[in-house]
Amino acid sequence: MKKHNFSAGPCILPPSVFEDAALAVKDYDNSGLSLLEISHRSKAFVQVMERARELSLELLGLKDKGYKALFLQGGASLEFLMVAYNLLEKKAAYLNTGTWSSKAIKEAKLFGEVVEVASSKDANFNYIPKNYTVPPNVDYFHCTSNNTIFGTQLKSFPDSNVPLVCDMSSDIFSRSLDFSKFDLIYAGAQKNMGPAGTTLVVVKEEILGKVSREIPSMLDYKVHIGKDSMFNTPAVFPVYVSMLTLEWLKELGGIKAIEKLNNKKAELLYNEIDRNPLFEGFVPHKEDRSNMNATFNLKDDAHKENFDLLWNKANINGLNGHRSVGGYRASMYNAMPIESVQVLVEVMQELEKNA
Amino acid sequence: MKKHNFSAGPCILPPSVFEDAALAVKDYDNSGLSLLEISHRSKAFVQVMERARELSLELLGLKDKGYKALFLQGGASLEFLMVAYNLLEKKAAYLNTGTWSSKAIKEAKLFGEVVEVASSKDANFNYIPKNYTVPPNVDYFHCTSNNTIFGTQLKSFPDSNVPLVCDMSSDIFSRSLDFSKFDLIYAGAQKNMGPAGTTLVVVKEEILGKVSREIPSMLDYKVHIGKDSMFNTPAVFPVYVSMLTLEWLKELGGIKAIEKLNNKKAELLYNEIDRNPLFEGFVPHKEDRSNMNATFNLKDDAHKENFDLLWNKANINGLNGHRSVGGYRASMYNAMPIESVQVLVEVMQELEKNA
Repeated sequence: MKKHNFSAGPCILPPSVFEDAALAVKDYDNSGLSLLEISHRSKAFVQVMERARELSLELLGLKDKGYKALFLQGGASLEFLMVAYNLLEKKAAYLNTGTWSSKAIKEAKLFGEVVEVASSKDANFNYIPKNYTVPPNVDYFHCTSNNTIFGTQLKSFPDSNVPLVCDMSSDIFSRSLDFSKFDLIYAGAQKNMGPAGTTLVVVKEEILGKVSREIPSMLDYKVHIGKDSMFNTPAVFPVYVSMLTLEWLKELGGIKAIEKLNNKKAELLYNEIDRNPLFEGFVPHKEDRSNMNATFNLKDDAHKENFDLLWNKANINGLNGHRSVGGYRASMYNAMPIESVQVLVEVMQELEKNA
Repeated sequence: MKKHNFSAGPCILPPSVFEDAALAVKDYDNSGLSLLEISHRSKAFVQVMERARELSLELLGLKDKGYKALFLQGGASLEFLMVAYNLLEKKAAYLNTGTWSSKAIKEAKLFGEVVEVASSKDANFNYIPKNYTVPPNVDYFHCTSNNTIFGTQLKSFPDSNVPLVCDMSSDIFSRSLDFSKFDLIYAGAQKNMGPAGTTLVVVKEEILGKVSREIPSMLDYKVHIGKDSMFNTPAVFPVYVSMLTLEWLKELGGIKAIEKLNNKKAELLYNEIDRNPLFEGFVPHKEDRSNMNATFNLKDDAHKENFDLLWNKANINGLNGHRSVGGYRASMYNAMPIESVQVLVEVMQELEKNA
């Protein structure tokens, strides 16, 4: 029976990707060998890595614009310190919009001075700070485009003369942006891109090589660029599944096409959250709401038992909110069909009827 | 048609592991969800991680002896610098037995003084140095147990009073050792343990926390231990496949049982290399030869075309030597059946007959 998977990540991927990935584990491309047992230096896998890198730049509209795409390991958490290792000479500016921003700030402080330009911590990160200024004398400005835990999303990015670095782990490839505004984008694969175990880094080469410290090889973006993202054995299977997912997105029409679908899904659910008298959104300012992760609560916890029963019966999975927010969180990543959101909306309406 | 996969890594794994892994990609444990789309915080995956950690310690005979097992990302290459970050206060001693040792030394030098106690670089690493002394006043001694590229293997390890750190990427779980001699063992999964994308670290807790530098969270073994190897999203699929492979090894009878099989395979091939007048081993000292990776050459390159034709016809895969050694390399990891080695031996004999 079909599950409706609202998991925040690792999360739903297209069914065809699961099919093709399972096949590759058994027998890769009719080679008689599993994808898991071939050399990462084989022609077969080098092609996979190159295709994944190429698709990333192509889908973001960054081909031939001075950017390189890398598939590294360690998740966004390793990028928190790699960004600082590679770019932070004296001072960097960070926008603090939640748990992940806070963690990025913590790691950066080991490498230099960090200016927190603004924070929404005062309201448990339920809004996106605005009207802050990026200082002109910093090495870079860092922000988190989408806050998975709190369900907020940056809808615009500041203009400044310093390099713009963005953690796009939970909304990359989900909406149209002028990606050429960014100098370094990173994203753990396990939301819109693939399974856990690989991290996409898209970096404008010209910003690298400017810090005076020595950088260990594995933490040096220039080293990875010089080796075409194959300095050491990459996470073969996660990169392959990411390539499949990016191919799927391209065939669907790319970011512009998926953005329309994502808008429809988000509209459907937020309309119900706002309409249904039993629920309220966690994020009060509508313009700050995430199209990827809708966070909401029951106004009266007396309905909790019933609601949980109903959505579980409807084969919905992964709807519990993060412990720091509570309530519910519906993650609606690229691969989620609108039918699943419709099922959730119907469950919410059923609860209202029964109340 | 069955392939005989002698690839140096990523490499052959048990057929049942590929079957179970493919199934999990489609539908994990009859949940209606792919293993790739469930939360790493779900009960299902937390169990996988705990089982993989537990099996690692159990198979190495290190349960209840003060060790912790971690499944991290970044491969041995990230461990090269993590070891130094966590343990190197002033001075460390390294044994240089090849490419990977050399890389480990290079990264360690960024963090303190490195004493190279011995090196076989003078003979392109075709032997294991002996009769060296580990200085008593170093923070740790580091060695590489098996040298995949050159086909050498340490058969004994020095006794000393300093912590013993070992890169066992290419022979862990392949032979009986007193693993309690070691204070930190690390190994990229992609040889005897699983697919590329995760790294096993087994560390004696008491050696940690002694350096004065601040360690970024993701590079700090204590942080990973404190979070039960789930500080951030782990490489879910590679960890799962590693768990399957360790279960397979346990059912087979553990390290003692696989060691017997590995000895037989190595004996079969080295006997042929030494007997067959057309071939010679790359490693002259028999006691230094690796049971995992047998490196050998044709004495006369005139036979190369024929030999390559023959082994390709026999469905043998991955037999070419590393570019820094040339010739051939037969990697015979745990999951390789002796029948595949027999096929290679027969091809070598056929070449001799035709010569």
